[in-house]
Amino acid sequence: MPIEIERKFRVTGTAWRTADGQRICQGYLNRDQHRTVRVRVAGAQAFLTIKGVTTGATRAEFEYAIPLADAEALLALCDGPLIDKVRHRVEHGGLLWEIDEFLGDNAGLVVAEVELASEDQAVDLPPWVGEEVTHDHRYFNSNLATHPFSQWRGAAGARD
Amino acid sequence: MPIEIERKFRVTGTAWRTADGQRICQGYLNRDQHRTVRVRVAGAQAFLTIKGVTTGATRAEFEYAIPLADAEALLALCDGPLIDKVRHRVEHGGLLWEIDEFLGDNAGLVVAEVELASEDQAVDLPPWVGEEVTHDHRYFNSNLATHPFSQWRGAAGARD
Repeated sequence: MPIEIERKFRVTGTAWRTADGQRICQGYLNRDQHRTVRVRVAGAQAFLTIKGVTTGATRAEFEYAIPLADAEALLALCDGPLIDKVRHRVEHGGLLWEIDEFLGDNAGLVVAEVELASEDQAVDLPPWVGEEVTHDHRYFNSNLATHPFSQWRGAAGARD
Repeated sequence: MPIEIERKFRVTGTAWRTADGQRICQGYLNRDQHRTVRVRVAGAQAFLTIKGVTTGATRAEFEYAIPLADAEALLALCDGPLIDKVRHRVEHGGLLWEIDEFLGDNAGLVVAEVELASEDQAVDLPPWVGEEVTHDHRYFNSNLATHPFSQWRGAAGARD
């Protein structure tokens, strides 16, 4: 079974920002943590992605490319609000970091993810990485759709 | 948007039975009627299918072929029991009829579906077709998974 092992961090400053961030719009056909079904439009590409339950930093993940027109119709079928963000990709310490700068109701939230080969893989943290939030379910994009950052207590401050 | 227009009927007798029925196993990553997400293994092929809400006899439908190994892992992620059935395909009056003979907890139930180009298309009903159940949500496969035929009141009789 294809699995995804990733760690997730809050991000500080702006040194991570790239000039060629990619706009991503995504929604959920199911937001149940045991079987999320995500529709994502990333530029001119679109994907349907199913993820199983997260154990530690590991999760089963199945992803399929689908036609853009299908994805746009599927976004309209989604449950709850959509997630809108710009993704920046930065290499650091031999690993690819994906930094998501959220828009809309999640504006102000910036999160970095790094995909690993194993849960105990050593990671050289970039200087712009803050608190680790791998195990905090509020940061699941499927949860950010319905409980956006703007509604978190203290979100207007530096951290909550 | 790809749509599916179909009518559904209970089936009587056995004159519809073919020698080469295909075994189908399917489960649901979402059984919400507004956005069902189905995983189906049909012989050596597998599909992921998303359907929107049904209006009359019409429903948005998006189907993608996926690797068999993925489908088997995805069936394990499904919500609730799986549906097990044998599908027979019979041509009648210039239309293709799909007759599903359910197994397991739905044993005893046989349902025929015919796909149409428009809701008002004339249909020459085969002699083995009984009551129309197009608008009866109990017959949705997504509902049969959790409320199987064996639990319907009077299911042991000819009709309920």
